[in-house]
Amino acid sequence: MKLASLIHGRDGRLVVVSQDLTRATDAFPVVATLQAALDDWDRYAPRLADLALSLEHGSVPSFRFHEHDCAAPLPRAYQWLDASAYLNHIELVRKAGGDIVPPAMMAEPLMYQGGSDTLLGPRQPIRTPSEEQGIDFEAEVAVVTGDVPMGISSEAALGHVRLVILVNDVSLRRLAGHELPKGFGFVQSKPSSAFSPVAVTPDELGAAWRNGRLHLPMLTQVNGKPFGRPDAGIGMAFGFGEIIAHAARTRSLAAGTIIGAGTVSNHGPEGGPGLPLARGGVGYTCILEQRTVEKIESGKPQTPFLRFGDTVRIEMKDAAGHSIFGAIEQEILPAG
Amino acid sequence: MKLASLIHGRDGRLVVVSQDLTRATDAFPVVATLQAALDDWDRYAPRLADLALSLEHGSVPSFRFHEHDCAAPLPRAYQWLDASAYLNHIELVRKAGGDIVPPAMMAEPLMYQGGSDTLLGPRQPIRTPSEEQGIDFEAEVAVVTGDVPMGISSEAALGHVRLVILVNDVSLRRLAGHELPKGFGFVQSKPSSAFSPVAVTPDELGAAWRNGRLHLPMLTQVNGKPFGRPDAGIGMAFGFGEIIAHAARTRSLAAGTIIGAGTVSNHGPEGGPGLPLARGGVGYTCILEQRTVEKIESGKPQTPFLRFGDTVRIEMKDAAGHSIFGAIEQEILPAG
Repeated sequence: MKLASLIHGRDGRLVVVSQDLTRATDAFPVVATLQAALDDWDRYAPRLADLALSLEHGSVPSFRFHEHDCAAPLPRAYQWLDASAYLNHIELVRKAGGDIVPPAMMAEPLMYQGGSDTLLGPRQPIRTPSEEQGIDFEAEVAVVTGDVPMGISSEAALGHVRLVILVNDVSLRRLAGHELPKGFGFVQSKPSSAFSPVAVTPDELGAAWRNGRLHLPMLTQVNGKPFGRPDAGIGMAFGFGEIIAHAARTRSLAAGTIIGAGTVSNHGPEGGPGLPLARGGVGYTCILEQRTVEKIESGKPQTPFLRFGDTVRIEMKDAAGHSIFGAIEQEILPAG
Repeated sequence: MKLASLIHGRDGRLVVVSQDLTRATDAFPVVATLQAALDDWDRYAPRLADLALSLEHGSVPSFRFHEHDCAAPLPRAYQWLDASAYLNHIELVRKAGGDIVPPAMMAEPLMYQGGSDTLLGPRQPIRTPSEEQGIDFEAEVAVVTGDVPMGISSEAALGHVRLVILVNDVSLRRLAGHELPKGFGFVQSKPSSAFSPVAVTPDELGAAWRNGRLHLPMLTQVNGKPFGRPDAGIGMAFGFGEIIAHAARTRSLAAGTIIGAGTVSNHGPEGGPGLPLARGGVGYTCILEQRTVEKIESGKPQTPFLRFGDTVRIEMKDAAGHSIFGAIEQEILPAG
């Protein structure tokens, strides 16, 4: 089934969305918010699934679904953890900073704790105080979990995935360069992340969801022009099972925890960092990677970071070309 | 006024507590949970304050208040940010790792984003998989904010403090030594933090709350023996105004955000790292600091980290010797 939270109060108004994203029906007769559904998933999920089936059959009242009416599926969440599971991304980000990847770095998932008190809907602008902070996007796949016990195995962890979503993990690169050396993670350099209109249960993904990975291209655009289409199932060094188990090693995770796998990134055919779309590669899902490749090749980055008025779009399509999650499409605007 | 959340479901049952912490009355006729109160504070706070006054006058039904019935005031929160504002603590932690404090480190508050999906009540045990991870406590003062706009000034930020609480920021030192060099902050090394039974509005603190600091000794005990009593108002390089403003530089903060000031720590009279209580100093509010001082003086740490069965107690008393927040008192136990 596919679920969305329409913009309404602090927690949104839960709706069930048709598979083709054209129609929706209120989940209110079952449960009012997505967090409440996740809090008691075994009780509510079967009833929401019934509603989804009735919606497909046209046997419940429904209305036109508009992606721009959506808040994030969880407009505020109790936890947002983000891994960095794509080796090519780690290599390129470290190269951008003039460093190599320490071998120990790849023994387990690299992961940070993000802010989750104000998560952006798919059409909400990215508001930030300055164009000089190196405004960038990062297109990611993330999962929403149920309650996960401490010490869970990677194998068992996958059974706690309730929903899959897309994320724009907005990053301020120049502030990250300042925060990373302190070791304390990202506070100012990772403002509110944005989420796809729709969250889907893993069964909606069919064979594309296997080994804790989503095997489909992540499609990104900047200012309406294609920027990347790397496959989210390729080059992901750790699956979601390993990622969730890593997060739960010393603590339990509460229902509604969102965990991302990091910026989708594919090596090139010869194992290198790959090429931009314009040069026949699969491109990138963040600007920093393309800049780093440009710097390696020509000595200096060509592609600018995002400026006020720029737009970024993130989407994923199934084998038949239909949008699965709806699109994240955001404009960069000055704060206040 | 003083507020607590009794253990009940995922979000607790909000009660108003008498100033002397002996009696409580249900807040339910006004609002059911602390998060709901914070979401609409201007509406609910005056009515909760009326209830507090009626409780003091004995004009509402009340019951005996037991600290061990308490969950964390917010048993799950949308955000937990923790600064490290005490210079002596930063110096000692860096010395423990063999490093000096880079001067740039003190230009602004050091801060990490913590997990807030499962916050522990004051008597809940600290459950962790192994005694070998360097189990430590950190006694801290924290504030709970209302909605804070992006880019707020330090001066204005203080006006957004709704409540003050005590925290045990549980730390697994050996895992932190592994996570810090990666730059991504703490995930496995900072399991669930624990909170004082009671959260208080700043007016309850009288003159002890000034300049964005709480000027009272932080009292800690390990296994029933006094371990430290440094003054939380001394050596705090940044006040809560600066700390909140730092957190809100590139993003707004949602109501119910908890922000800590870090492990309370005082320099000694000559500007050094101070002495343990047993040697006439004010002691420490985490074990790592005492171990570092021992290592500096004798070449090796003497005080062990916490083991299963050990207990830690954190409390703060007013000038008349009355507990303000109630006590955090936790036993260390194996997971599962």
